[in-house]
Amino acid sequence: MDKTMKKKMEQLKSKLMEIGDLGYISSLLNWDQSTYMPPGGAPARARQMALIGRMAHEKQTDAKLGKLLDALEPYRQSLPYDSDDASLLRVARRDFELAIKVPSAFMADFYGHCALSYENWTQARPANDFQKVAPFLEKTLDLSRQFAEYFPGYEHVGDPLINLNDEGMKASSVRALFASLRQQLVPIVKAISAQPPADDACVHRHFPESLQSQFGVEVITAYGYDFKRGRQDKTHHPFMTKFSLGDVRITTRFDEHFLNNGLFSTLHEAGHALYEQNINPAFEATPLGVGTSSGVHESQSRLWENLVGRSRPFWEFYYPKLQKVFPQSLKDVSLEAFYRAINHVKRSLIRTEADEVTYNLHVMIRFDLELQMLEGKLAVRDLPEAWNARYTADLGVTPPDHKDGVLQDVHWYSNFIGGVFQGYTLGNLIGVQMMEAAQKAHPTIVEDMGCGKFDALRSWLKDNVNWHGRKYLTDELVKRVTGKPLSIDPYIHYLKRKYGELYQLS
Amino acid sequence: MDKTMKKKMEQLKSKLMEIGDLGYISSLLNWDQSTYMPPGGAPARARQMALIGRMAHEKQTDAKLGKLLDALEPYRQSLPYDSDDASLLRVARRDFELAIKVPSAFMADFYGHCALSYENWTQARPANDFQKVAPFLEKTLDLSRQFAEYFPGYEHVGDPLINLNDEGMKASSVRALFASLRQQLVPIVKAISAQPPADDACVHRHFPESLQSQFGVEVITAYGYDFKRGRQDKTHHPFMTKFSLGDVRITTRFDEHFLNNGLFSTLHEAGHALYEQNINPAFEATPLGVGTSSGVHESQSRLWENLVGRSRPFWEFYYPKLQKVFPQSLKDVSLEAFYRAINHVKRSLIRTEADEVTYNLHVMIRFDLELQMLEGKLAVRDLPEAWNARYTADLGVTPPDHKDGVLQDVHWYSNFIGGVFQGYTLGNLIGVQMMEAAQKAHPTIVEDMGCGKFDALRSWLKDNVNWHGRKYLTDELVKRVTGKPLSIDPYIHYLKRKYGELYQLS
Repeated sequence: MDKTMKKKMEQLKSKLMEIGDLGYISSLLNWDQSTYMPPGGAPARARQMALIGRMAHEKQTDAKLGKLLDALEPYRQSLPYDSDDASLLRVARRDFELAIKVPSAFMADFYGHCALSYENWTQARPANDFQKVAPFLEKTLDLSRQFAEYFPGYEHVGDPLINLNDEGMKASSVRALFASLRQQLVPIVKAISAQPPADDACVHRHFPESLQSQFGVEVITAYGYDFKRGRQDKTHHPFMTKFSLGDVRITTRFDEHFLNNGLFSTLHEAGHALYEQNINPAFEATPLGVGTSSGVHESQSRLWENLVGRSRPFWEFYYPKLQKVFPQSLKDVSLEAFYRAINHVKRSLIRTEADEVTYNLHVMIRFDLELQMLEGKLAVRDLPEAWNARYTADLGVTPPDHKDGVLQDVHWYSNFIGGVFQGYTLGNLIGVQMMEAAQKAHPTIVEDMGCGKFDALRSWLKDNVNWHGRKYLTDELVKRVTGKPLSIDPYIHYLKRKYGELYQLS
Repeated sequence: MDKTMKKKMEQLKSKLMEIGDLGYISSLLNWDQSTYMPPGGAPARARQMALIGRMAHEKQTDAKLGKLLDALEPYRQSLPYDSDDASLLRVARRDFELAIKVPSAFMADFYGHCALSYENWTQARPANDFQKVAPFLEKTLDLSRQFAEYFPGYEHVGDPLINLNDEGMKASSVRALFASLRQQLVPIVKAISAQPPADDACVHRHFPESLQSQFGVEVITAYGYDFKRGRQDKTHHPFMTKFSLGDVRITTRFDEHFLNNGLFSTLHEAGHALYEQNINPAFEATPLGVGTSSGVHESQSRLWENLVGRSRPFWEFYYPKLQKVFPQSLKDVSLEAFYRAINHVKRSLIRTEADEVTYNLHVMIRFDLELQMLEGKLAVRDLPEAWNARYTADLGVTPPDHKDGVLQDVHWYSNFIGGVFQGYTLGNLIGVQMMEAAQKAHPTIVEDMGCGKFDALRSWLKDNVNWHGRKYLTDELVKRVTGKPLSIDPYIHYLKRKYGELYQLS
């Protein structure tokens, strides 16, 4: 690299890091709002989110940034595709091209609106009051469609939104994938429903919050979550957030009468955090220094939550410990009964509490409804009815209220409508496909889990997935890591194997 | 106001609010670092503080802001001095003139350095390691002197720094005030020291942290601190901070074997918070929307801490409640004995724990030492020795270590050296002078305290002091509110009356 290019690379990185840091600052404003901010802080917080959002967007679209990228183009072309610098230049270019299509004032308005809408949702959900959120949701839908209109030539109005979180994917490709998945899933759900239901009463006994927290911390510390570079707090809706490579925080919530809620949320968010904590430090605060997509992020969280945390070997090691933490509630429950309880397949109301088999049906409902809203075929006022109708049709349960119905997930109330939910199902698929590859590389991974050891798995994920941050698109990464394109087959085989045994399916 | 001026005023306010909000965002970054940030977050936090500091300073020095202020000058001159708009224009002009003297890169460097220095101090203090902070302190001293050099023509190198916190004051005026105060104080301290010491063993018994916290919350709620617009957390060094009029937070620390520590810190910070929560909402996020100076701020905190919280009527009401909270430690302690214990005058090591009589001697030590450092007469490496020598000479106690010596206060380790400590003593003086005026207006204030009622006092402070934010300079405000210029007499009379009775001085 000659001196001029070197200097330009440094200038570029410094500009990109400012953008990255403004994003992290915005995340802190958001974390604080979700964890500790008193209610009186909400109006100013919305104003401050809008200000930071606008300033970040102004930096993202700075003409000088474009010129630097242009000037560095020959340097990029001289490098191998997967070198760090070529990747940074490639991804920064994509971000720049995307950002300049959207006015800064729009982004400021959007961030400010999201902060107010979120605050409103935190009150509306416990009050079971859809009417309270409806006007906010109307504006969110308007803003979401307006955002899509900044990208004329899209195939589907949802595509620009999907692209924000799962870069390179489209409504059509996701729909096709979901259709074939649905075809395979529905018979499995039916077959299981025909069996006698598992007894999960034991996870609904009394589990004091502080002890749940203590046990969760023990497990995720063993997973490798580094509390010196993170912390855990409580929020209405669990999430992972990041303010730098050295500060990756998670949140959770607890239900003293439903163990799964806090436990699996904790493992899930720790999975996200392991991704972010294990990214190459050289990428700090640059566009490469985050997980590559919603789908790959969920692959990590769902893997640590389910493929590890809901597996039999894991509980062979941890169940005696859990019994010691909750002797009153669990002393008369065998490992096998507990394992069956936490893997109890049930057509139910709440996505975050759903079992591995029905989970994707929850996602598909949201994905379809948000596309319908974006297409203008479903009005916000008709959303609760449509939601309930789909739950009745797909899952055989009708929400008794909005709280555990259309108000249950924070996403539509704090972000665009569209483009987020598909990531959960993509993550389920990618997670299993990656776990297969990891086990191929390290055949002792399952055996290790039975001893509470996760080093080989964590290292493999770090080296193959996490370390690369945003260098590769989802499809590239999946192929690179597993040797095959993204497919539903490993996931379906996994379900059939695990639940075939649990429910004695033929 | 004609249409053009109206539009320009709106443009100005919008620009000023952006600056205000960036300041609030910076305060949140700082609050988070002090309360919950994991250690791994420190390097990026320093970078982010520097970024926000630089962006805020760029906005503060924006030529467009200067042009707006120029254009609005005829409008300002057409208004009464104490109108809101004239005051905003006057104060904004002063801020602008100050900001343009300092380069943005300097401020960025300074904020980044402070964040690192603070983090370093949090480790060095418990480790009793002055050497660890010395290099940071050297740089802080350099930066402090460099800052002063941006204001050539100063009378004393400390003046530009004093002006930052106590606008309009100078080293010479503070020195003169301190000299006459010292002359009055020293004989009082001597006279008290000649008496048999009060017995304060009862406040060193065991006071569980959670109960201390609960009692503190009860008192400051009665004071009028609004938890819907605030919250309390724990930090190494207690402080009050603000992210908007609706979000004014306080912090405290507890010592389970010294009741005064957490209790009076809590009352003190609540006093600061009452100031900020009671500012005219029309000033939100503008230069008028904060307390007017360090001295006036401390007048509020020291008033609620001492003139209320260390008074006999206050404890006539609260002591039976305190006894109920800590029956084991206090059941055999009479109200009178407790009152004497919390007003125990003792030449001691720690400023924040000092009694009302010796407190100002602690401040004077710091004020003198920081001026000597700024003057180049005292090197950082010689600071611990100079500190210990002054404590031995002025207070008759020699710090056994640096932890409770030169490392005890956060200020030099997280801000400029110089310009902050004088505010505490100014606050002691102003607080008594204001309390006298308040009692003249509402003669039942003391009687009310004996019933746990603080409405008349709080309302008087709100209407006369808090509501006006930064409209008036300290001197203007003191004269306006008390009818007299700032004087040491009311404070000295107060000490003689209260401690004359307690120690039976002639």
